[in-house]
Formats: sequence, structure tokens, C-alpha cells
Amino acid sequence: MLMKLLLYGLLGAGIFIVGILLGHFAIEKGGPPAPEWVEDVSRDVDEGLIERFIKEVDNIEIQENLRMLTSVPHMATTEGDEQTVQYMLKRWGDPESGLDDAWREEYKVYLSFPSSILPNKVTVVSPSNAVLFTAREKELAYEPDQAHPDVVQPYAAYSPPGHPKGKLIYANQGKVSDYEYLNTTMDIDLNGTIAIVRYGGAGRAAKAINAFPFGVIGVLVYTDPLDINDGRMSDANETYPHSWYLPPSGVERGSFGSQFGDMRTPYLAAKEHTYRIPESDIRGIPPIPIQPIGFEDAYALICELGGQAAPADWHGAFNCSYTIGGPGFNSASLYHNSDVKLDIYNKGELKNSSNVMGVIRGSVEPDRYIIYGNHRDSWVHGAIDPSSGTSVMLEITRVLGRMVKKGEWRPRRSIIFGSWGAEEFGLIGSTEYTEEYYSKLRERTVAYINVDISVFGAGSDYAAFIHFLGITSMDIAYTYDRSKTKARIYPAYHTAYDTFNYASQYIDPGFTSHQTVARTAGNVLLRLADSLLVPFNCSDYAESLEQYLQTSLNFSSKLADKGISMEPLKNAVAKFRTAATSLNKMIRDSTLTKETPLKVRRINDQLMLLERAFLDPLAFPEKYGYRHVIWASKSSPVPTFPGLADAFARAQESNLSTDWSQVHKHLSIITQAIEGAAHTLGDVI
Amino acid sequence: MLMKLLLYGLLGAGIFIVGILLGHFAIEKGGPPAPEWVEDVSRDVDEGLIERFIKEVDNIEIQENLRMLTSVPHMATTEGDEQTVQYMLKRWGDPESGLDDAWREEYKVYLSFPSSILPNKVTVVSPSNAVLFTAREKELAYEPDQAHPDVVQPYAAYSPPGHPKGKLIYANQGKVSDYEYLNTTMDIDLNGTIAIVRYGGAGRAAKAINAFPFGVIGVLVYTDPLDINDGRMSDANETYPHSWYLPPSGVERGSFGSQFGDMRTPYLAAKEHTYRIPESDIRGIPPIPIQPIGFEDAYALICELGGQAAPADWHGAFNCSYTIGGPGFNSASLYHNSDVKLDIYNKGELKNSSNVMGVIRGSVEPDRYIIYGNHRDSWVHGAIDPSSGTSVMLEITRVLGRMVKKGEWRPRRSIIFGSWGAEEFGLIGSTEYTEEYYSKLRERTVAYINVDISVFGAGSDYAAFIHFLGITSMDIAYTYDRSKTKARIYPAYHTAYDTFNYASQYIDPGFTSHQTVARTAGNVLLRLADSLLVPFNCSDYAESLEQYLQTSLNFSSKLADKGISMEPLKNAVAKFRTAATSLNKMIRDSTLTKETPLKVRRINDQLMLLERAFLDPLAFPEKYGYRHVIWASKSSPVPTFPGLADAFARAQESNLSTDWSQVHKHLSIITQAIEGAAHTLGDVI
Repeated sequence: MLMKLLLYGLLGAGIFIVGILLGHFAIEKGGPPAPEWVEDVSRDVDEGLIERFIKEVDNIEIQENLRMLTSVPHMATTEGDEQTVQYMLKRWGDPESGLDDAWREEYKVYLSFPSSILPNKVTVVSPSNAVLFTAREKELAYEPDQAHPDVVQPYAAYSPPGHPKGKLIYANQGKVSDYEYLNTTMDIDLNGTIAIVRYGGAGRAAKAINAFPFGVIGVLVYTDPLDINDGRMSDANETYPHSWYLPPSGVERGSFGSQFGDMRTPYLAAKEHTYRIPESDIRGIPPIPIQPIGFEDAYALICELGGQAAPADWHGAFNCSYTIGGPGFNSASLYHNSDVKLDIYNKGELKNSSNVMGVIRGSVEPDRYIIYGNHRDSWVHGAIDPSSGTSVMLEITRVLGRMVKKGEWRPRRSIIFGSWGAEEFGLIGSTEYTEEYYSKLRERTVAYINVDISVFGAGSDYAAFIHFLGITSMDIAYTYDRSKTKARIYPAYHTAYDTFNYASQYIDPGFTSHQTVARTAGNVLLRLADSLLVPFNCSDYAESLEQYLQTSLNFSSKLADKGISMEPLKNAVAKFRTAATSLNKMIRDSTLTKETPLKVRRINDQLMLLERAFLDPLAFPEKYGYRHVIWASKSSPVPTFPGLADAFARAQESNLSTDWSQVHKHLSIITQAIEGAAHTLGDVI
Repeated sequence: MLMKLLLYGLLGAGIFIVGILLGHFAIEKGGPPAPEWVEDVSRDVDEGLIERFIKEVDNIEIQENLRMLTSVPHMATTEGDEQTVQYMLKRWGDPESGLDDAWREEYKVYLSFPSSILPNKVTVVSPSNAVLFTAREKELAYEPDQAHPDVVQPYAAYSPPGHPKGKLIYANQGKVSDYEYLNTTMDIDLNGTIAIVRYGGAGRAAKAINAFPFGVIGVLVYTDPLDINDGRMSDANETYPHSWYLPPSGVERGSFGSQFGDMRTPYLAAKEHTYRIPESDIRGIPPIPIQPIGFEDAYALICELGGQAAPADWHGAFNCSYTIGGPGFNSASLYHNSDVKLDIYNKGELKNSSNVMGVIRGSVEPDRYIIYGNHRDSWVHGAIDPSSGTSVMLEITRVLGRMVKKGEWRPRRSIIFGSWGAEEFGLIGSTEYTEEYYSKLRERTVAYINVDISVFGAGSDYAAFIHFLGITSMDIAYTYDRSKTKARIYPAYHTAYDTFNYASQYIDPGFTSHQTVARTAGNVLLRLADSLLVPFNCSDYAESLEQYLQTSLNFSSKLADKGISMEPLKNAVAKFRTAATSLNKMIRDSTLTKETPLKVRRINDQLMLLERAFLDPLAFPEKYGYRHVIWASKSSPVPTFPGLADAFARAQESNLSTDWSQVHKHLSIITQAIEGAAHTLGDVI
């Protein structure tokens, strides 16, 4: 019986084993086993990881980053700048919280500096050559930072040197219409005059470029307390260090160039051996000397002017009457019959500027890039501009770097971090980078994220990415309640008062706004890097195009008179909408985690390359670097397609048939670009 | 016992089933089952399929295609052209051997035709206004084809109309140096003269453009028997229909424009509503009337010329002495003191031209295109140019279409077939196509294959693909044993003798050369469409760059004198070589069928986009449509980088420092492009 049981037992076990074997080998599980990569390629963003990232972003770390970055002035290519290069390399090379790799890239770029020996001077000189007034050479020190020997004297970068002397006139904001008003309406001969203008209304360089044809020989520019200080003027109790407002001696420095990128190597990366155009061929810089001064000095000059009253909208916040100048000072003034003299000693120099680059390699699609960047160089200590952004970037890389070093995470796509050099001189570092790596960036970059000034963002390094390369770009900044201040930007912008103390006392005590920006930017970055589907909604683009179209239709009756139809443009926008809707439907109807990775890639490429379809390198031959026919800069205030808006404005003014032809041409350019973009979004074949 | 056995049986069965279940579900097969697409995405080209394709390509089918396509003259936009459109649509729409889809695309393009009422005339007119000689208006008919009423009179498309009358001079090939020789060396006043020149040496339009500054007022152009007929001249026994040689009355028609694409819509697809530049703004067309004539008529004129003997290398095959003209005829001639008069009535017209498009959708990567194309329009019957190519294309689509319709095959990538319109007027249909679909073609096209004239290929529709879009392109043609003929192209080229009889009697009796071309082109097409790895070898590119570099180094000592170093270019080429070698090694070391499809795609994108990295839309502002810095056209004969070669030649001639700067600039442009291409091939991050 035992034997029998044993036998039956063995028999049963035998049957059992045969069953197992049959079950394992003879019954197909719907094909061979999946290769390891199948799961990887279809993985989507991990929400838990994002939550963890948000939790780990630390406001005090950001504060300490800022303290370190702002310890000395770090104007582009100075010793202070090199210190920040080393600091970035150290942080990104950190074995515990650094990136996969970090390195520097150098360009030899054309900058402009005041003389280290002869400071620029602004004086009032009597007919007998007595100096009656001298503008302040440096800003007043309220804290040790302003007294640092490396604080650069306020100056207008790219202003030519020179010693113009002439009668002063007040020209409001230095717009063409301002000079025209003086010259035509007021019948003032501007030849040989020095203009004083306030910031705002026209670009920095434009204030001098606009003045030149009227015979003006020099320009002073200042920030009126109306435009930046909500009228406050007194440093006894109103301005910094008593508040965030600009002290009377504060001067906004800046680049007085109107293009982006190194001026002497257009479209070429500025390497040591690169061909450079002669300085005389540079366009878009002041043809006459220009110098910025504080409103304390501007007050001393403007309030002494003679001549008739300036129009009401030319008035700033000074407690004197704004007159336009005789030209020159009023008869009651000590300066009567005196000239204003500028002594400008600026010099162009070729200097080595560095970008610091860092990378986290992608696991699944290393050939798809998310680029995150900010410039590193400042005018003085640059606490807000740019170090608020850099502090945030360093905190993001610290948190992500730690996860990478611990092996806890690696993004689906590659992330490239860029700490750009020489932005303040015209977005130079970022632009040279886009020129050098044009091809691979163009083919592989999903998006560019810029976080510069974390509050009150202005123009910044995204320009070359969106305008030149056609890469979807985002600029992130915390902003203010505009009902509480009329300041066009934070008041210490580009002055020696943009310091750690200023930032931590008045801009973001506790650094919680910075923390919020870091969390937001990091969240966006992680979604761009890890989402299976690139998180772009092309229907939003359709909406923008439709708004532009609606506005442009105001031109249609005038254009119809000239035999130009807007129907093709209408049809193109409608085609784009249809293509966007159908792509979105296709996305909705698909379970992307189950689809072939090549189908997901296909859709992602459609989304990534959508922006590229709007590039036309020949659309704006006169606008350096602008190739994007939807977002290029324009002169006309009409919110529509820039080429069309400007051509229409020109044709309406001149009514020349050649100018109407240009309107037709721009209509065709835009129509073709929108149709091309619709093809990009439509069925791939 | 029965019960017991039953029980044990049931127990055994139960154990067996549990075993099967455990075996199937509880033991992992090394992961979950593979999704269906895993096998598809890693499938490589099927050699058996290629063999089958080659076997099925039929010479008689090609012959019958040709017979059908050449039944009537089919110059662009004529009724005969429309017949070929319908025929292509019928073939590609065939339910048993057609493509997935076929359609037409229309462009409104600027063409140039002779008058239908007033034929162009070339006469010799005596001082008393007697007409002493009239050139033949139409070619002599040896078969019914030449007598067809739709045979267009020989003319120079885009020649302006006009009635110039003047003394005749012989100007060899109409090169600048030819006119200079007459004007400077021979001291002949060319003002008011009519030049007669032979084909070759300079482009068609150039012969008139070069003449204009010397005061020449009209040009005649002919094909010298030396250049096309190996000297043969007599139609009694030597020329067609006795051989493949050109009969005495045969005239090469052609486009006398020097740009490609529709002339009035540069960079814009020529839709109905597209902006058109005025006719007066068209560049690159003859500024003075020009007319082609047969060598029979040229003989009658040249042999009567007076003046001194032409240089030896100006002599053609006529059995008279080539003199340069008094100007005018010799004193022994009946034409002495007579003028040559041209009466040209050509007219520019906007006409609708069609491309016929067909597609086979890709299964795995539908968003990757292989484009195969040829033009459809001819000057007359166009048996060789272009119908030899179209016959081949139709045979390829028949064989592939049948496989698709039977469900036996579908390519990995999409295949687009294009039957281009209006090529003869300047590659217009293909260029407008690249303009209209610029974005998506640029991002998705792996390669373009062109098969036009199957023998002795000339410039053709690949131009816009390679020069404007930067797409890897191939032109396939069967060629001749050059030791047996000096003909620069088949002799009936662009004449009324390019007929089915001519092709089947003298060019390819039995159509086996056509068959070979079809097999070769189809083989290439299938490998491009189906290979897992795109079959490009980037090391070949490195070799070309190295050859160009070596040649350019001849400039280096001269450039060193000017302070321009060639080291950066050397380094760039070396970087390219390193990147190409390492990519090839990576490919060799990988088993691509086992890799993630995104890695294979990554490598394929590197190969596909390599050519794009050489595009620079601003490198040649004066050369319409040329953006590829390696393969652009050039004037200098030095086989190196075109921008560098031309800039160097110019600077050497002028020795102006601004011209040496341009050499430096082109050096920088090329260096940056090659480095960009090296980045494309290098590690993706």
C-alpha cells in the first residue's frame, strides 16, 4: 500500500511536472518575452517625484546661493565674473549634488567699457570755460557694497567716446516723435545741442540714434522718479536703504546696442579665429556720445532749463517746471549761456567671456534636450539681475543632482543647464551658443526655460532660442501687484544698489518668492523632461494665430482696394486649427503607454518642431537674428503678425505701390509659414 | 476499482491542470510578453523582396510606358502635358498596381513662350532692306512626330522680345573671356553687333548676359557638330534617322534663366494668390534677344563671315575657316555689308503647372520620407528627356504597387513619388514643392532620388532638394563609353528628334538599359525605405571634406600673408572625421535589431540630418536657393569649398582688403558648418 501510494504519488508528481512544463513552454503568452527596454520607453512622468522635488526645494539654500553669488561685483569678463564661473563649476561638479558633467565654453566677444584711468564726465561749462557743475561720477555708498573698488562707473556700453559740448534741451524720452516735436512744432534748431532724456518709451540706443539726424551731438539719459520711484526722491527717508526705491544718485547702466549677440561676428560663434566685421560696420549702436546720470543730477540740470513749457505728458516727478530749453538754461540760472559738456572715454574691447554648461543625460531619449538657462554676469553685484535667477537654478540643480547621484532618478530626455556670459552687453553668451550649436540644438531641443530676474522680468536670453532657433521658450518670473507701484521694473535695476541686502530686505525677505519660482520652474522642467508626451497644447497656438488674424482683418478693406486678398491667410489659419484639433483628437484617442515608441516620438516631433515651421531666415533681412514670423519684434503697435503690421503701417504712410507690394509679400510669407506649420501638425503622410 | 481508478484519474487530471496553470502563470518567462510592435520596429530590409523586385522589372513594360508618354509633344502646361498628368494619375490610382494615394498639385508659374501667330525670325538683311537669307523656322520632318502641329518652334525661353539688327560677329561660346578677346585683344567695337555663339562653355542665359555689357544687341546660339555629332553633318547618311546624330536643322531649345524655381515668387510657393515680383525685377535672364538655330543655318552664316581668323580653340567642325567677323560678312560674300536681324516675339505668361504626387505609406516610420521624382514636361516629345526616366519610375511603381495592393509588402518608411511639372523652364515644379512643404520635408526626408534622362544625365530636379533643403540626393543615369563619342549629351537633346523611334532605335533597343536603371533605382529605393539603419556612410563624407580641405590648403600661404589662419578649418575637418569614425564604430558594435527603436531612430536621425547641418541661408546672399556650403555652385574651377574658392579668386584678382575679409568670412562660415555637422554626428549629449 505504501508502495502503491508512493507509486501514485510519483505518478501524480510526474503528471504535475509534465503539466508545469506544458503550461510554461507549450502555451504561448501572446509572443516572446518583452525586451527590457519596452517598459522604459513607455514610462510617463512620476508625480511622486515632482512632489518630492517641490518638498526638497529650500528657501535658505537659495538665500545662501544669492549671498555667495553677490559677494563681489561680477560684470562680464571681470575677475568677479571668473569667481562666479568657478563657483558654478564647483557646484555642478559636486560629487554629491552635481550634474553628470559640467564645463566652460569661451567666446571672444566685443564689449565696451569706460576707461579705467579717465572717468566719463558730465559738466556745465561757462562761456569763459569755468566748470560750474559736475555730475556725480559714482553712486553714493549706503553700504560697503557700493564702495567696492570693482563697482563700474555708470556708463552707456557701446556709446562712442567723444567730447561734445552744446546747449541743453529736454527731449522727453528720445523718441523720433519727441525730437520732431522740438524741431518741427517748436521750431528749435537742434544742431549742436545736447539732449537730456528720460528712460522709457524708446530703447536705450534709440535715444541717441533718433537724435543724430536732427543734429544733436550728445545725449544724457536719466531715470525720472515718476517712472521708477512712484515719485519718491529723498534719500533722507524715502529711498533705499529706507525702502526699495532708487536713491537720487542711482544710475541705470546698460547696453546701448539694439541687436543681440556679439556685434562683430553676426551669425558666427565668436571663436578666437572667427572673422570679425570692422567696428565701423557695427549697426544699431549710438552714433553720438551718450551717458546715463542719476536723477539728482538730472534735477540740477532740467530745473535750470529755459525755453517754453514742455507738453504735459513730458513731465516727470520733479518739483520744478519741465521746460524744453532755450536751447540752454534760463536767464535766471547761474548756468545761463553755459554749455553742457560730455567727456566720454568708453572703449570697445575683445574679451573672453564664458558660458558654464552642465548636463544630466537622458535615459530614453538622450537626443532630446530641455535647456534651462540664465545669465551669470551683472552690471554691479546684480542681486536681482541675474543672481536671483541663478540662485534658483542652483537650487534646482542641487535637488535634481542629488537624485541623479544617488541613482534614484534619471530624466527621460537630456537636460542642459546654461549659465550664460555677457548677457548685459546684448545676450551675447546665449546667442553665441545658439550660433555654434545651431544644427544640433535646432533638431533636438524640445524647449528652453529662462529664469533671470525672478521678479519683473525684462528681455533676456530666451531671445536667440525663440527668434533665431525657433525653439519653444518660456520665461518665468514672480511679479508684483501692479496696482501698488507704477515702477516699470524694480528700482535698483542695473545700479549699484542691486545688492544682497536690497534683495533680502525689500524684494523677498525669507526668500519664499524665490522658492516658489524654483518650485514652479522645476516642475515645468521635470514635466518637459519626463512626460511621455511633450506637454505642449497646439490648440493654444491656433488661438494665438486666430487672434492675430482677427486683428489683421482690420487691414482687409484697405488691402482689397489694392487688389490684395486676405482669404489665403484666413484659409491658412483655418487649416492650422483643423490640423491642431485632429492631432489633439489623435492624442486623446491613443493610449500612448501602449503605443509603439516611434508613434509617440512622431507626435512629440510634431509638437517640438511646430515652432520651427514659423522660421523664415529671409523674412526680415534688416532685423538681425529675427527669423520667427509670428513673434519677431515690430515697430507697429498693432498686435498682429509683425511683418504684416510693419509693412502695412509703412504702406499706409507712404501709399507707394512698392510699399503695398511689400504688404502683399509679407502676407504671402506668413500664409506659407502657417500652412507649413499646419503640415507639421497634420497627418504625417 | 473502477471508481478508484476514476478517482485517481480525476486526481491525476486535477494535478495535471494545476501544473499547467502554475507553469503558465506562475513562472515568469523573463518579463511580460512583448507587444506586437516589437518585432515590426526592429525588422530589417528583406533581401528576398529585393530579388523579387529585380526579377519583376520588365523591359517591355518600360518600352510601352515610353510609347504612351511620348505619343504627343508635352511641353509644360500644354494640352499634351495635361494628357500625361491624366496618365500618371490613372497609373498611380490603379486599383491593382497603383499607390496608396495619388493627386495633383497646381502652381501658377511664370513661363515664356514664342508667339502662336508671329514666329521668331532670323534673317540677313541687305543695306537696301532686301531679305537675303532666312533661317529655318521649324526642324525638318523625317518622321510624323516632327510634323505634329504641337511641336514648338525652337526658341530661347525667357529671351526678351525685340528686333535687333546689326553686323554679325562670332564669339565662340559666349563666355566673358570670349567677348573680352574680341573687344580687347582684337580691338573690335562690339556695340550694335549680333553675336553668334555655340552651345557649351557658358550657361544658356550667360551667353547673352555676358554679351550685354560689351554693347552686343542680339545673340544667336547653335550646336556645333564638333560638340555633339563627333563632326558628322550630313543628313543624307550620317545623322538621324541614319544614326543617333543630330540632323542639320535640329535646334536645342532650353530655359535661358540661371536660377531654379518660379522666377516671380522667390522662396514662396507660386499659388494663385502669392505675391509676385514685377517682371522687371527678375534676375538672371537675357537682357537682349537671343535665339537658337540649327547648325545648318549657323554654317550658312559663320562661313560667310569676314574679319580675322578665330583662335584655334574657337573652331568647330565646319569645313570652312572660322573667322570672327568684320564685324559682318566677308567681301566675297553675297551678304557683304548686310546685317543680321532677329525678330523675337517671346512672351512671359502665368500658367498653371501640375506636379503629380503619389505615396506609399510607411508602416513603422511613416514620418520618414524617401522621395523619388522626375519631371514630366518635355520640350517636344521628350523621349529621353524626361520620359526615359518617367517610364522607369512607372515600372518601379507598377511592381511595388502590386505588392502593396496584394498586401505582400509595405515599406518601413513612407515613399513619395513626384512627377514634376515645368522642369524645362527652370526646375519649377520640384522647387515650388520644396518651398510649399519646406518644414515637413526638411524634418522628415531621408533622401531624394532623381531619375530623369536615363542616359547622359544633366542638371535636374534634385537641385532644390540638395541645395535649398539640404536633403541627401542621388541622380541615377546610365551613361556611355566616353571613349566612343565626344558628344556632351545625347545629340537629340531638346530637339524635335527626341522621339520614341529615336530612343528605341538608337539609344536603347530592347530597353535593357532602362531596365537596368529601373532595377538599380528600385534597389536603392527599397534599401532606403526598408533598412533598419539608414544606409549612409558618413565616413565617405569625411573623405570628401578632407579632399576639399587638401585642395584649399593651397591657399594657406597666401592667406597667412593676410593674417588668416586655416588651422580652424583643419581642426573642424579633423573633428568631423573623429565623429564619423566613432559613430561608425558605435553602429558596428551594436546589434541594432535588439536595440531600443529610439536608439536606432537616434542614429538614423544623425545620418539623415547630417546634410542639413551644412545649410546656411545667408552664406550666398547673391545665389538664389543655394544654402549648402559644401555643394553650392561656384565660378572658380578650384575643386574645394565653393564660397571659399570664389572669395579667394575674387580677392586674388582685386587684392582689396575688403575682399580678403570676405575670404576670412567664408572660411569662418565653412568651419562653423563643418563643426556643426561634426556635432550632429558626435555623441548626442
